[in-house]
Amino acid sequence: MELLKQRILSDGRALDEHVLLVDSFLNHQVDVKLMQAVGAEFARRFADDGVTRIATIESSGIAPAAMTALAMDLPMVIMKKSVSSILRDGILQTEVFSFTKNLAYQLTLKKDFILPGDRVLLIDDFLANGEAAFGGFKLIEEAGGIPVGLGAVIAKVFQAGRDKLLAAGYRVEALAPVKRMSEGVIEFE
Amino acid sequence: MELLKQRILSDGRALDEHVLLVDSFLNHQVDVKLMQAVGAEFARRFADDGVTRIATIESSGIAPAAMTALAMDLPMVIMKKSVSSILRDGILQTEVFSFTKNLAYQLTLKKDFILPGDRVLLIDDFLANGEAAFGGFKLIEEAGGIPVGLGAVIAKVFQAGRDKLLAAGYRVEALAPVKRMSEGVIEFE
Repeated sequence: MELLKQRILSDGRALDEHVLLVDSFLNHQVDVKLMQAVGAEFARRFADDGVTRIATIESSGIAPAAMTALAMDLPMVIMKKSVSSILRDGILQTEVFSFTKNLAYQLTLKKDFILPGDRVLLIDDFLANGEAAFGGFKLIEEAGGIPVGLGAVIAKVFQAGRDKLLAAGYRVEALAPVKRMSEGVIEFE
Repeated sequence: MELLKQRILSDGRALDEHVLLVDSFLNHQVDVKLMQAVGAEFARRFADDGVTRIATIESSGIAPAAMTALAMDLPMVIMKKSVSSILRDGILQTEVFSFTKNLAYQLTLKKDFILPGDRVLLIDDFLANGEAAFGGFKLIEEAGGIPVGLGAVIAKVFQAGRDKLLAAGYRVEALAPVKRMSEGVIEFE
Protein backbone atom coordinates (compact mmCIF):
# COMPACT_ATOMS: atom_id res chain seq x y z
CA MET A 1 0.00 0.00 0.00
CA GLU A 2 1.93 2.94 -1.38
CA LEU A 3 0.33 5.69 0.74
CA LEU A 4 1.26 3.83 3.92
CA LYS A 5 4.80 3.03 2.80
CA GLN A 6 5.40 6.68 1.93
CA ARG A 7 4.13 7.71 5.35
CA ILE A 8 6.40 5.21 7.08
CA LEU A 9 9.37 6.56 5.12
CA SER A 10 8.51 10.18 5.88
CA ASP A 11 7.28 9.96 9.50
CA GLY A 12 8.49 6.59 10.78
CA ARG A 13 11.90 6.07 12.30
CA ALA A 14 14.03 2.95 12.44
CA LEU A 15 15.85 3.10 15.76
CA ASP A 16 17.93 0.00 15.04
CA GLU A 17 17.62 -3.37 13.22
CA HIS A 18 14.45 -4.26 15.09
CA VAL A 19 12.57 -1.23 16.39
CA LEU A 20 10.40 0.83 14.04
CA LEU A 21 8.88 3.90 15.65
CA VAL A 22 5.55 4.83 14.05
CA ASP A 23 3.94 6.46 17.06
CA SER A 24 3.27 9.73 15.25
CA PHE A 25 0.58 8.22 13.00
CA LEU A 26 -0.19 4.61 13.95
CA ASN A 27 -0.06 3.64 17.60
CA HIS A 28 0.07 6.69 19.88
CA GLN A 29 -0.94 9.63 17.74
CA VAL A 30 -3.25 8.17 15.08
CA ASP A 31 -4.01 9.53 11.61
CA VAL A 32 -7.59 8.28 11.34
CA LYS A 33 -7.85 9.23 7.65
CA LEU A 34 -4.87 6.99 6.96
CA MET A 35 -6.53 4.27 9.08
CA GLN A 36 -9.65 4.69 6.95
CA ALA A 37 -7.52 4.06 3.85
CA VAL A 38 -5.94 1.06 5.59
CA GLY A 39 -9.42 -0.31 6.36
CA ALA A 40 -10.47 0.16 2.73
CA GLU A 41 -7.37 -1.72 1.56
CA PHE A 42 -7.99 -4.67 3.90
CA ALA A 43 -11.64 -4.70 2.75
CA ARG A 44 -10.42 -4.88 -0.86
CA ARG A 45 -7.93 -7.69 -0.23
CA PHE A 46 -10.43 -9.83 1.70
CA ALA A 47 -13.50 -8.89 -0.35
CA ASP A 48 -14.05 -12.42 -1.73
CA ASP A 49 -13.43 -14.38 1.45
CA GLY A 50 -16.87 -14.33 3.03
CA VAL A 51 -15.60 -12.60 6.17
CA THR A 52 -18.33 -12.30 8.83
CA ARG A 53 -16.38 -10.70 11.67
CA ILE A 54 -13.31 -8.57 12.38
CA ALA A 55 -11.16 -9.37 15.41
CA THR A 56 -8.27 -7.43 16.87
CA ILE A 57 -6.06 -7.32 19.91
CA GLU A 58 -6.08 -4.32 22.22
CA SER A 59 -5.01 -1.67 21.92
CA SER A 60 -3.02 -0.55 18.86
CA GLY A 61 -4.99 -2.81 16.53
CA ILE A 62 -8.32 -1.19 17.41
CA ALA A 63 -8.20 1.89 15.14
CA PRO A 64 -7.27 0.02 11.91
CA ALA A 65 -9.64 -2.85 12.84
CA ALA A 66 -12.54 -0.46 13.48
CA MET A 67 -12.00 1.18 10.09
CA THR A 68 -11.84 -2.25 8.42
CA ALA A 69 -15.08 -3.31 10.15
CA LEU A 70 -16.71 -0.07 9.03
CA ALA A 71 -15.55 -0.55 5.42
CA MET A 72 -16.82 -4.15 5.40
CA ASP A 73 -19.97 -3.43 7.46
CA LEU A 74 -19.12 -6.13 10.02
CA PRO A 75 -19.01 -6.37 13.82
CA MET A 76 -15.64 -6.11 15.53
CA VAL A 77 -14.44 -7.98 18.59
CA ILE A 78 -11.51 -6.75 20.68
CA MET A 79 -9.47 -9.49 22.35
CA LYS A 80 -8.34 -8.24 25.74
CA LYS A 81 -4.96 -8.41 27.40
CA SER A 82 -6.44 -8.32 30.89
CA VAL A 83 -9.71 -9.37 32.45
CA SER A 84 -11.89 -6.77 34.12
CA SER A 85 -13.68 -7.66 37.32
CA ILE A 86 -16.97 -7.79 35.40
CA LEU A 87 -15.74 -10.18 32.69
CA ARG A 88 -15.40 -13.59 34.26
CA ASP A 89 -17.80 -16.14 32.81
CA GLY A 90 -17.69 -17.86 29.45
CA ILE A 91 -14.22 -16.66 28.54
CA LEU A 92 -11.44 -18.27 26.53
CA GLN A 93 -7.82 -17.48 27.30
CA THR A 94 -4.37 -18.21 25.96
CA GLU A 95 -0.97 -16.97 27.07
CA VAL A 96 0.87 -14.65 24.69
CA PHE A 97 4.40 -13.35 25.15
CA SER A 98 5.03 -9.77 24.03
CA PHE A 99 8.63 -9.12 22.99
CA THR A 100 7.92 -5.37 22.81
CA LYS A 101 6.79 -5.22 26.43
CA ASN A 102 8.86 -8.20 27.57
CA LEU A 103 6.00 -9.82 29.44
CA ALA A 104 3.36 -12.48 29.03
CA TYR A 105 -0.35 -11.75 29.16
CA GLN A 106 -3.56 -13.75 29.00
CA LEU A 107 -5.25 -12.97 25.71
CA THR A 108 -8.95 -13.11 26.53
CA LEU A 109 -12.15 -13.51 24.52
CA LYS A 110 -15.73 -13.89 25.69
CA LYS A 111 -16.76 -16.81 23.57
CA ASP A 112 -20.24 -15.39 22.83
CA PHE A 113 -18.58 -12.85 20.55
CA ILE A 114 -17.30 -15.33 17.98
CA LEU A 115 -20.01 -17.67 16.74
CA PRO A 116 -19.44 -21.20 15.47
CA GLY A 117 -18.78 -20.94 11.73
CA ASP A 118 -17.87 -17.24 11.86
CA ARG A 119 -15.24 -16.39 9.25
CA VAL A 120 -12.93 -14.10 11.16
CA LEU A 121 -10.35 -11.65 9.82
CA LEU A 122 -7.76 -10.74 12.45
CA ILE A 123 -6.35 -7.22 12.14
CA ASP A 124 -3.30 -5.94 14.01
CA ASP A 125 -0.93 -3.01 13.75
CA PHE A 126 2.32 -5.02 13.71
CA LEU A 127 3.41 -8.52 12.79
CA ALA A 128 6.84 -9.43 14.15
CA ASN A 129 7.27 -12.77 15.90
CA GLY A 130 3.65 -13.76 15.37
CA GLU A 131 2.92 -14.55 19.01
CA ALA A 132 -0.16 -12.34 19.21
CA ALA A 133 -1.52 -13.59 15.87
CA PHE A 134 -1.11 -17.25 16.86
CA GLY A 135 -2.85 -16.50 20.16
CA GLY A 136 -5.67 -14.71 18.35
CA PHE A 137 -6.16 -17.55 15.85
CA LYS A 138 -6.16 -20.06 18.69
CA LEU A 139 -8.99 -18.25 20.48
CA ILE A 140 -10.95 -17.84 17.22
CA GLU A 141 -10.66 -21.59 16.61
CA GLU A 142 -11.54 -22.49 20.21
CA ALA A 143 -14.72 -20.42 19.87
CA GLY A 144 -15.60 -22.39 16.72
CA GLY A 145 -14.70 -19.67 14.25
CA ILE A 146 -12.67 -20.01 11.07
CA PRO A 147 -9.60 -17.76 10.77
CA VAL A 148 -9.65 -16.22 7.28
CA GLY A 149 -6.28 -14.59 7.74
CA LEU A 150 -4.23 -11.89 9.35
CA GLY A 151 -4.23 -8.34 8.08
CA ALA A 152 -1.15 -6.59 9.47
CA VAL A 153 -0.65 -2.89 8.87
CA ILE A 154 3.14 -3.33 9.11
CA ALA A 155 5.05 -6.63 9.05
CA LYS A 156 8.69 -6.97 9.95
CA VAL A 157 9.11 -9.87 7.56
CA PHE A 158 12.75 -10.41 8.56
CA GLN A 159 11.40 -11.68 11.89
CA ALA A 160 9.89 -15.15 12.14
CA GLY A 161 6.18 -14.37 12.45
CA ARG A 162 5.03 -14.29 8.83
CA ASP A 163 6.92 -17.42 7.81
CA LYS A 164 5.60 -19.33 10.81
CA LEU A 165 2.01 -18.25 10.15
CA LEU A 166 2.26 -19.17 6.45
CA ALA A 167 3.82 -22.53 7.39
CA ALA A 168 0.88 -23.16 9.74
CA GLY A 169 -1.51 -22.54 6.84
CA TYR A 170 -2.70 -19.04 7.72
CA ARG A 171 -3.04 -16.31 5.13
CA VAL A 172 -1.11 -13.12 5.86
CA GLU A 173 -1.65 -9.77 4.17
CA ALA A 174 0.80 -7.06 5.19
CA LEU A 175 0.21 -3.57 3.83
CA ALA A 176 3.79 -2.50 4.50
CA PRO A 177 6.18 -5.49 4.61
CA VAL A 178 9.55 -4.27 5.90
CA LYS A 179 12.36 -6.53 4.74
CA ARG A 180 15.29 -4.75 6.36
CA MET A 181 15.96 -1.93 8.81
CA SER A 182 18.89 -0.25 10.44
CA GLU A 183 19.27 3.13 12.13
CA GLY A 184 17.63 5.62 9.79
CA VAL A 185 17.05 3.04 7.01
CA ILE A 186 13.77 1.28 6.16
CA GLU A 187 13.50 -1.04 3.15
CA PHE A 188 10.28 -2.61 1.98
CA GLU A 189 9.93 -6.00 0.35
CA MET B 1 -28.73 10.25 22.07
CA GLU B 2 -31.81 8.15 21.56
CA LEU B 3 -30.27 5.42 19.35
CA LEU B 4 -27.63 4.73 21.98
CA LYS B 5 -30.07 4.73 24.90
CA GLN B 6 -32.32 2.27 23.09
CA ARG B 7 -29.35 0.01 22.42
CA ILE B 8 -28.33 0.13 26.08
CA LEU B 9 -31.88 -0.80 27.11
CA SER B 10 -32.08 -3.67 24.61
CA ASP B 11 -28.54 -5.11 24.78
CA GLY B 12 -27.00 -3.70 27.96
CA ARG B 13 -27.42 -5.35 31.33
CA ALA B 14 -27.37 -3.81 34.79
CA LEU B 15 -25.77 -6.41 37.04
CA ASP B 16 -26.35 -4.40 40.21
CA GLU B 17 -26.47 -0.74 41.35
CA HIS B 18 -23.05 -0.01 39.88
CA VAL B 19 -22.09 -2.38 37.08
CA LEU B 20 -23.49 -1.87 33.59
CA LEU B 21 -22.49 -4.57 31.11
CA VAL B 22 -22.31 -3.21 27.55
CA ASP B 23 -19.68 -5.58 26.21
CA SER B 24 -21.87 -6.78 23.34
CA PHE B 25 -21.70 -3.45 21.48
CA LEU B 26 -19.32 -1.01 23.18
CA ASN B 27 -16.22 -2.38 24.82
CA HIS B 28 -15.54 -6.00 23.83
CA GLN B 29 -17.69 -6.66 20.80
CA VAL B 30 -18.05 -3.27 19.09
CA ASP B 31 -20.83 -2.07 16.79
CA VAL B 32 -18.74 0.22 14.61
CA LYS B 33 -21.81 1.69 12.86
CA LEU B 34 -23.13 2.74 16.27
CA MET B 35 -19.68 4.16 17.08
CA GLN B 36 -19.85 6.13 13.82
CA ALA B 37 -23.17 7.61 14.99
CA VAL B 38 -21.60 8.34 18.39
CA GLY B 39 -18.72 10.12 16.65
CA ALA B 40 -21.14 12.19 14.58
CA GLU B 41 -23.04 13.19 17.72
CA PHE B 42 -19.87 14.31 19.54
CA ALA B 43 -18.86 16.22 16.40
CA ARG B 44 -22.24 17.98 16.45
CA ARG B 45 -22.08 18.86 20.15
CA PHE B 46 -18.54 20.25 19.93
CA ALA B 47 -18.85 21.77 16.44
CA ASP B 48 -18.43 25.36 17.62
CA ASP B 49 -15.60 24.85 20.09
CA GLY B 50 -12.59 25.11 17.80
CA VAL B 51 -11.40 21.60 18.68
CA THR B 52 -7.99 20.83 17.12
CA ARG B 53 -7.34 17.35 18.53
CA ILE B 54 -9.14 14.31 19.92
CA ALA B 55 -7.62 12.46 22.88
CA THR B 56 -8.67 9.18 24.44
CA ILE B 57 -7.49 6.61 26.95
CA GLU B 58 -6.71 3.07 25.85
CA SER B 59 -8.41 0.88 25.14
CA SER B 60 -12.24 1.07 25.21
CA GLY B 61 -12.25 4.76 24.30
CA ILE B 62 -10.37 4.20 21.05
CA ALA B 63 -13.25 3.13 18.79
CA PRO B 64 -15.61 6.04 19.66
CA ALA B 65 -12.68 8.48 19.69
CA ALA B 66 -11.47 7.32 16.25
CA MET B 67 -14.97 7.80 14.83
CA THR B 68 -15.17 11.27 16.41
CA ALA B 69 -11.76 12.20 14.97
CA LEU B 70 -12.89 10.95 11.57
CA ALA B 71 -16.15 12.95 11.75
CA MET B 72 -14.26 16.11 12.77
CA ASP B 73 -11.26 15.49 10.47
CA LEU B 74 -8.79 15.78 13.36
CA PRO B 75 -5.80 13.79 14.63
CA MET B 76 -6.31 11.47 17.59
CA VAL B 77 -3.92 10.74 20.41
CA ILE B 78 -4.24 7.64 22.58
CA MET B 79 -3.06 8.05 26.16
CA LYS B 80 -1.43 4.82 27.27
CA LYS B 81 -1.85 2.83 30.46
CA SER B 82 1.60 1.31 30.22
CA VAL B 83 4.88 2.33 28.69
CA SER B 84 6.45 0.20 25.98
CA SER B 85 10.19 -0.34 25.95
CA ILE B 86 10.46 1.99 22.96
CA LEU B 87 8.54 4.90 24.52
CA ARG B 88 10.76 6.46 27.15
CA ASP B 89 11.75 10.02 26.31
CA GLY B 90 9.67 13.16 26.44
CA ILE B 91 6.73 11.59 28.21
CA LEU B 92 4.25 12.97 30.72
CA GLN B 93 2.69 10.69 33.32
CA THR B 94 0.09 10.82 36.05
CA GLU B 95 -1.26 8.09 38.30
CA VAL B 96 -4.88 7.05 37.80
CA PHE B 97 -6.80 4.60 39.94
CA SER B 98 -9.23 2.32 38.11
CA PHE B 99 -12.14 1.18 40.26
CA THR B 100 -13.21 -1.30 37.56
CA LYS B 101 -9.86 -3.07 37.58
CA ASN B 102 -9.02 -2.16 41.19
CA LEU B 103 -5.50 -1.03 40.38
CA ALA B 104 -3.53 2.12 39.70
CA TYR B 105 -1.76 2.76 36.43
CA GLN B 106 0.50 5.47 35.00
CA LEU B 107 -1.45 7.33 32.33
CA THR B 108 1.19 8.24 29.76
CA LEU B 109 1.43 10.77 26.94
CA LYS B 110 4.35 11.63 24.69
CA LYS B 111 4.24 15.38 24.95
CA ASP B 112 4.98 15.93 21.23
CA PHE B 113 1.47 14.73 20.47
CA ILE B 114 -0.36 17.60 22.15
CA LEU B 115 0.90 20.98 21.02
CA PRO B 116 0.83 24.18 23.10
CA GLY B 117 -2.53 25.83 22.46
CA ASP B 118 -4.18 22.67 21.11
CA ARG B 119 -7.87 22.59 21.94
CA VAL B 120 -8.38 19.01 23.00
CA LEU B 121 -11.63 17.03 23.25
CA LEU B 122 -11.24 13.98 25.49
CA ILE B 123 -13.44 11.01 24.52
CA ASP B 124 -14.01 7.94 26.69
CA ASP B 125 -16.46 5.07 26.81
CA PHE B 126 -17.49 5.51 30.47
CA LEU B 127 -17.59 8.27 33.03
CA ALA B 128 -18.00 7.03 36.61
CA ASN B 129 -15.71 8.41 39.30
CA GLY B 130 -13.89 10.69 36.90
CA GLU B 131 -10.39 9.47 37.79
CA ALA B 132 -9.40 8.75 34.18
CA ALA B 133 -10.86 12.05 32.91
CA PHE B 134 -9.04 14.10 35.56
CA GLY B 135 -5.82 12.27 34.67
CA GLY B 136 -6.36 12.92 30.97
CA PHE B 137 -7.09 16.62 31.50
CA LYS B 138 -4.00 16.93 33.71
CA LEU B 139 -1.75 15.53 30.96
CA ILE B 140 -3.40 17.73 28.31
CA GLU B 141 -2.73 20.80 30.48
CA GLU B 142 0.84 19.75 31.29
CA ALA B 143 1.52 19.48 27.56
CA GLY B 144 0.20 23.04 27.11
CA GLY B 145 -3.14 22.05 25.60
CA ILE B 146 -6.55 23.41 26.49
CA PRO B 147 -9.18 20.83 27.55
CA VAL B 148 -12.39 21.65 25.68
CA GLY B 149 -14.38 19.02 27.51
CA LEU B 150 -15.10 15.37 28.04
CA GLY B 151 -17.32 13.40 25.69
CA ALA B 152 -18.46 10.25 27.49
CA VAL B 153 -20.46 7.64 25.64
CA ILE B 154 -22.09 6.53 28.90
CA ALA B 155 -22.01 8.40 32.23
CA LYS B 156 -23.10 6.89 35.52
CA VAL B 157 -24.19 10.28 36.82
CA PHE B 158 -25.11 8.86 40.23
CA GLN B 159 -21.38 8.41 40.81
CA ALA B 160 -19.21 11.40 41.66
CA GLY B 161 -17.29 11.91 38.39
CA ARG B 162 -19.52 14.28 36.47
CA ASP B 163 -20.24 16.57 39.43
CA LYS B 164 -16.55 16.76 40.30
CA LEU B 165 -15.56 17.55 36.70
CA LEU B 166 -18.25 20.25 36.41
CA ALA B 167 -17.18 21.71 39.76
CA ALA B 168 -13.59 21.86 38.46
CA GLY B 169 -14.83 23.86 35.46
CA TYR B 170 -14.71 21.15 32.80
CA ARG B 171 -17.51 20.66 30.28
CA VAL B 172 -19.05 17.18 30.20
CA GLU B 173 -21.23 15.81 27.42
CA ALA B 174 -22.64 12.35 28.10
CA LEU B 175 -24.60 10.69 25.30
CA ALA B 176 -26.32 8.29 27.68
CA PRO B 177 -26.46 9.65 31.25
CA VAL B 178 -27.63 6.84 33.56
CA LYS B 179 -29.24 8.22 36.71
CA ARG B 180 -30.12 4.94 38.43
CA MET B 181 -29.52 1.23 38.04
CA SER B 182 -30.36 -1.97 39.84
CA GLU B 183 -30.38 -5.57 38.70
CA GLY B 184 -32.21 -5.56 35.37
CA VAL B 185 -33.18 -1.87 35.62
CA ILE B 186 -31.55 1.06 33.81
CA GLU B 187 -32.97 4.59 34.08
CA PHE B 188 -31.65 7.55 32.10
CA GLU B 189 -31.57 11.13 33.30
